[in-house]
Amino acid sequence: MESGMNDAIDRDLSRDVANALCDAEETLAVAESCTGGLIGAEITAVPGASDYFDSGLTTYAYDAKRRHLGVSREALDEHGAVSEPVARQMARGIRDVTDVTWGVSTTGIAGPAGGTAANPVGTVYIGVSYGGPWGSEESYATVSRYVFDGDRAAVRAQTVEQALTDLLAEIDSR
Amino acid sequence: MESGMNDAIDRDLSRDVANALCDAEETLAVAESCTGGLIGAEITAVPGASDYFDSGLTTYAYDAKRRHLGVSREALDEHGAVSEPVARQMARGIRDVTDVTWGVSTTGIAGPAGGTAANPVGTVYIGVSYGGPWGSEESYATVSRYVFDGDRAAVRAQTVEQALTDLLAEIDSR
Repeated sequence: MESGMNDAIDRDLSRDVANALCDAEETLAVAESCTGGLIGAEITAVPGASDYFDSGLTTYAYDAKRRHLGVSREALDEHGAVSEPVARQMARGIRDVTDVTWGVSTTGIAGPAGGTAANPVGTVYIGVSYGGPWGSEESYATVSRYVFDGDRAAVRAQTVEQALTDLLAEIDSR
Repeated sequence: MESGMNDAIDRDLSRDVANALCDAEETLAVAESCTGGLIGAEITAVPGASDYFDSGLTTYAYDAKRRHLGVSREALDEHGAVSEPVARQMARGIRDVTDVTWGVSTTGIAGPAGGTAANPVGTVYIGVSYGGPWGSEESYATVSRYVFDGDRAAVRAQTVEQALTDLLAEIDSR
């Protein structure tokens, strides 16, 4: 299994997400890239997660982001897979292909290779989406950029923690 | 993060899978239920996984198995989500919606609730699929049933390890 860092923090966050979604009678699906499935794994580590967790699409390959989530070729070609537009389209896309209230997306460079001057290793974009069908006034998506320190496992663990934190903040703000 | 049990074993298995797929120039996608994304997370813990890992679809909700993987309502209604037919359809389905060589599926009861006399807590079906487009003579899917001991985290960790072991055995047998 993945590095055990932040054990207590992550598990508490998953339970907080569970409580927040159950209280609001809302649901969640996730679109992961650099985290590879870790967010879904953390969410479903809590018994009873099927009450609010629909699905997780880990679109690791370039084409998988287009195929499963409808990310546009333009966004991928012009901005790269690790970019604000792609994180936003992933967050919107996961809600387009499910019927959930909340979507979360991650795309980043966990390392050790793949870093650039503009996007060093540890750069991650996290998206959170909410709402009814896309186009309705209630729908929105927010994207934040982070640069995490540490090795591949550390970057991924911090991304999971930050994604759950960002989701909780959005739920709490409503 | 998930329980740290079997740390070394799992990471070695992920590296073995990486080596086997790279040697054969083959690719992988996974369809997870009870493991919630852990298999994808383990696969992508290895740097360079994008060379052979396309995507992982964690279909946790009943409807998600139909929507994302094309699992039939008949199989779900007649046999239940934790069954040989559903594991087989998930393993086939993940290859239908990608263009990979190998598919892996998991569906089981991680507990603590959900067990029945026929399928006690710890029951997991693991599927492995291989081949060209479905209908071609080269295509097949195998499904095995396991009953693992321990708590939710232990059942999930053993499922990850067994799924990677089953995949490796199928790759080696070709």
